[in-house]
Amino acid sequence: MSALASWSEGAAKSAIVDFVARVTKEGGSDYVPPAARIATFDNDGTLWCEQPVQVQVFFLIDRIKELAARDVSLKERQPYKALLGRDTQTLHALGKQAIFELAFASHAGISEDEFDTIACAWFAKATHPKFGRLFTQCTYRPQVELLDYLRANGFKTFIVSGGGIDLIRAFAEQAYGIPREQVIGSSVKLRFEAKDRSTSLMKLAELDSFDDREVKPQNIGLHIGRRPILAFGNSDGDLPMLRYTKSGHGARLALLVHHDDAEREVAYDREFRLSPLVEALDKAEDYGITVVSMKRDWKTVFSQEAR
Amino acid sequence: MSALASWSEGAAKSAIVDFVARVTKEGGSDYVPPAARIATFDNDGTLWCEQPVQVQVFFLIDRIKELAARDVSLKERQPYKALLGRDTQTLHALGKQAIFELAFASHAGISEDEFDTIACAWFAKATHPKFGRLFTQCTYRPQVELLDYLRANGFKTFIVSGGGIDLIRAFAEQAYGIPREQVIGSSVKLRFEAKDRSTSLMKLAELDSFDDREVKPQNIGLHIGRRPILAFGNSDGDLPMLRYTKSGHGARLALLVHHDDAEREVAYDREFRLSPLVEALDKAEDYGITVVSMKRDWKTVFSQEAR
Repeated sequence: MSALASWSEGAAKSAIVDFVARVTKEGGSDYVPPAARIATFDNDGTLWCEQPVQVQVFFLIDRIKELAARDVSLKERQPYKALLGRDTQTLHALGKQAIFELAFASHAGISEDEFDTIACAWFAKATHPKFGRLFTQCTYRPQVELLDYLRANGFKTFIVSGGGIDLIRAFAEQAYGIPREQVIGSSVKLRFEAKDRSTSLMKLAELDSFDDREVKPQNIGLHIGRRPILAFGNSDGDLPMLRYTKSGHGARLALLVHHDDAEREVAYDREFRLSPLVEALDKAEDYGITVVSMKRDWKTVFSQEAR
Repeated sequence: MSALASWSEGAAKSAIVDFVARVTKEGGSDYVPPAARIATFDNDGTLWCEQPVQVQVFFLIDRIKELAARDVSLKERQPYKALLGRDTQTLHALGKQAIFELAFASHAGISEDEFDTIACAWFAKATHPKFGRLFTQCTYRPQVELLDYLRANGFKTFIVSGGGIDLIRAFAEQAYGIPREQVIGSSVKLRFEAKDRSTSLMKLAELDSFDDREVKPQNIGLHIGRRPILAFGNSDGDLPMLRYTKSGHGARLALLVHHDDAEREVAYDREFRLSPLVEALDKAEDYGITVVSMKRDWKTVFSQEAR
């Protein structure tokens, strides 16, 4: 099967194929050596489905349920009570601090190794409520093909996500072919603990980095130390990364998934409260960002569907 | 030329060759899949010379000289005055805060791109005061061979250094074949700035991470998200990384360079104030760390010497 088989012919596919041809053409004026072929992808809504809420929220709920089964007092305490009761109004009223408390309760207080075991076990059985299949099967096939295509052309592919870094690492290698060390995400601080011949990294209930908006290019600076030549996002949270990528010298490509396909997935942009797409869509033309229409540009949406 | 040609036959070389054979033998009980073959190396004193002081200190001095040429008032202000006058007693008396101020003055207040230009220009001409050649030629040949050997066996090689991350990135690719995104080091915070179609990452005068001792495994957790199976250091600052590596499940190798070669390099351990080797040497046997004697185990020391 040819590369990018799930992409319809059109402006988006042409922009990708032309860009890759230009930067890989030795002797050409836009040639980029392989070491500098860095491509960064947002995850939620860009590489896989983020509706009705991001996958990490489902993980959070299941993990808090598990914790509440062991400590029943949680069921009566906020913000746990609101989460377990799906009381979104109270959750919103409790604010950002409550969300961090839930995130810390579900991600912290255990070692990285223990967290990984929990996350892998969850991904092995947790299913999407609407699509009725494993979350790991809710990845977008055109994007998995694009990652393969870029790597076949000497690119190094990275995830730069607002989601928890260790949760993404638990499935990104299998789902996208992206190794753990090429995943950047939100993180808690870690503490090294050593006792005799045993050591571990404890995940602490303290935010290290909330990898969204301007923090995305900042974390690219820290983790990669090189400006990407291609970036792909789907919300305003990705706009600084897209602008950072697009404004480098030489050939650059910045892309934005527009979820306009109510039939095969969900049609949304401005109104999605958790991660709206407003400014990036309005300014796409100004900033030279290529908008990819799910409806028009993708022949197939999900990886799981029959080829 | 055969791999590890600059390594003398002996316990250290055997430990390396045996380890690599075991973890790469498919079907063997110690087999490790390529994705998990992570090797982490300290830089100063492990991959290149750190005497009489670390290379970053020479960079610091030259950079402060440059800044003082443009702002002569610095010459009369501490801690700049002490540094420019090589007044180490006053510098020590001024303490850690003074060192950070110097580091921030030399690394911050400019963008990552500007810093890289300055660092690359410096490496192109700055020479070692004792060995009289470029600092980039003061890398250890046996270690460069080891990095190549590991990569040829499917390992991914990383630097985990107390030195400034962006300074190391400016030469690591050429000197060691280690790409920028596989360098972990001390860092300042970054701020994303955007103006019309121009964007940059400004290096701020605020510490993000001082990558030494227990921070090394913590940063491995953040950047790599996987426990190394091989780690190489040369001081107590590397001990937590060596213990973290060695205490994982399965086959692991932790190594320590012992600088015992006054003739070809410098003989030192306990007394080197900037980065002493005391506990790691005393406890090496306890922790199963292989000590590499520069004098006994390396046929050649520097990369620049005739082969």
